[in-house]
Amino acid sequence: VAELPSWNDGPAKTAVLEFLERVTTGGSAGFVPPPARVAVLDNDGTLWCERPTYVQAFFILDRLREQAAADPDLAADPVVEALLAGDLERAAADGQDALVEILLRTHEGLTTVEFTAAAARWLEEARHPRFGVPYTALTYRPMLELIDLLRLHEFRVFVVTGGGVEFVRAVSEELYGVASDDAVGSAVELSFERREGRVELVRQPRLLGSPNEGEPKVLAIQEHIGRRPIFAAGNSAGDREMLEYVTTGPLPSLGIVVDHDDAVREYAYESLSATDPDAEPILSSAARFAWTVVSMKRDWATVFGSGLDP
Amino acid sequence: VAELPSWNDGPAKTAVLEFLERVTTGGSAGFVPPPARVAVLDNDGTLWCERPTYVQAFFILDRLREQAAADPDLAADPVVEALLAGDLERAAADGQDALVEILLRTHEGLTTVEFTAAAARWLEEARHPRFGVPYTALTYRPMLELIDLLRLHEFRVFVVTGGGVEFVRAVSEELYGVASDDAVGSAVELSFERREGRVELVRQPRLLGSPNEGEPKVLAIQEHIGRRPIFAAGNSAGDREMLEYVTTGPLPSLGIVVDHDDAVREYAYESLSATDPDAEPILSSAARFAWTVVSMKRDWATVFGSGLDP
Repeated sequence: VAELPSWNDGPAKTAVLEFLERVTTGGSAGFVPPPARVAVLDNDGTLWCERPTYVQAFFILDRLREQAAADPDLAADPVVEALLAGDLERAAADGQDALVEILLRTHEGLTTVEFTAAAARWLEEARHPRFGVPYTALTYRPMLELIDLLRLHEFRVFVVTGGGVEFVRAVSEELYGVASDDAVGSAVELSFERREGRVELVRQPRLLGSPNEGEPKVLAIQEHIGRRPIFAAGNSAGDREMLEYVTTGPLPSLGIVVDHDDAVREYAYESLSATDPDAEPILSSAARFAWTVVSMKRDWATVFGSGLDP
Repeated sequence: VAELPSWNDGPAKTAVLEFLERVTTGGSAGFVPPPARVAVLDNDGTLWCERPTYVQAFFILDRLREQAAADPDLAADPVVEALLAGDLERAAADGQDALVEILLRTHEGLTTVEFTAAAARWLEEARHPRFGVPYTALTYRPMLELIDLLRLHEFRVFVVTGGGVEFVRAVSEELYGVASDDAVGSAVELSFERREGRVELVRQPRLLGSPNEGEPKVLAIQEHIGRRPIFAAGNSAGDREMLEYVTTGPLPSLGIVVDHDDAVREYAYESLSATDPDAEPILSSAARFAWTVVSMKRDWATVFGSGLDP
């Protein structure tokens, strides 16, 4: 079987294959026993498309549009007006906290189960504005192959995202074979409620702790996984600390950074941190730490699979 | 192979076996597919002995004793004096927060890796005051058999403890076959630090969020596991909400409560919530919700294995 068939030959593919051989060859100096083979992968922009904006943002905005159509007071709210007009700068004028609250109010009061169902329903119906396909068709095929190859080498694969953990869980099993307990992300406060004798967990319009970007991503990895991974993949400045943590441990490790340099097949952009616009560009971090940069244009024979290639 | 050989025949054993048969029999009304077969088990008093106090409390007090011996100022602190004299009431006189801070200061500044190593070392050396064996020998054999049987029926087993998650992780793999990412517990704040170019996570003397008892246990289950379990085991008033959550879901479920009624082979006591002394006694909750009560005295042929039976 060809390994990583959607990857072009080159330094990125070689780095991945050599790393996997190194840590799995019994008796070699670089051997890492299976329980320590933990891989953490960012989601948006690393496993699937995050342009023109995050998939979850489309989901929230569609819901907000529905709610505003039914509620003139909500529609008249200046933040809502700005959001629905696509003017993010104006929407954030009163600060990030006010914006986050507006966004989280769209699903306030839903139980966790209702929220997952709503996300799944939306993901079936919604279409990407440029590609015209469901967002779930916009995973990167080379990264899916990499996940398979990691598992073949007895890695446990976790998705560690800045996005909402419940939103990612709605798709992580289907898209990546990642069960709900192997997804780590930003969390919303839940309340414990008894409804007709049943305990239900109900979404509140507040984040629980920090957004899962930058240092919080590393703290969440420890809290959730409890050991230092040896493989990490990211694409934005918000992944820097995670990559740094993974690649400065005592065991052999590999960090890869997906570089969005392919405007023809996907998008060409620099991916900033969602929480710290001044964070070091991830390509600069990659150069400092000798992480492996994966150029979409050069290293991937296909991005989404041949059906969507131009 | 005999199932649950250390369990005496009786209603508790029957309830467990009937539940497992019901949810795993294909085509039956009660069938639950494997991904939904999630089990959550409390640790202290449910999987191992928690008397005369929590194992982790012995660990912390031993460290405090060492530190106080080397530091007269620390030894003169009234809370420390009270703790080392075994006077918990006096130690808590300034409130729980002050007490927790003193306790967490014992391992302040250690990296997560150093902490795990310290816990593992202590667990090898320390001996239980009554039984004279390592604390790790004081797991309940019937519960270990139950864990094996759950796994045989394709359950995924999580330990969900009020104790510190890093302390439990130091033993959960060895004692229960539960990997670090399948342990959920109270967490300590960590700081992200760069030491000689390496990222290290360093313990701070503060809890992260609430102690993992009562409602927080349920919220932690959702945050960590992301789905409602169908099997729960507990023993204290701090497990009530978890048992209630698990047994009021849409799928068939079983909740069991270990009743410490065996002063001869273990201890006889009522297990209170660590955070809410006024919480409903767990046996009253068990009666209200029809959970299965497991009497140590009546239902277990051995507690720790025959070597320790009187």
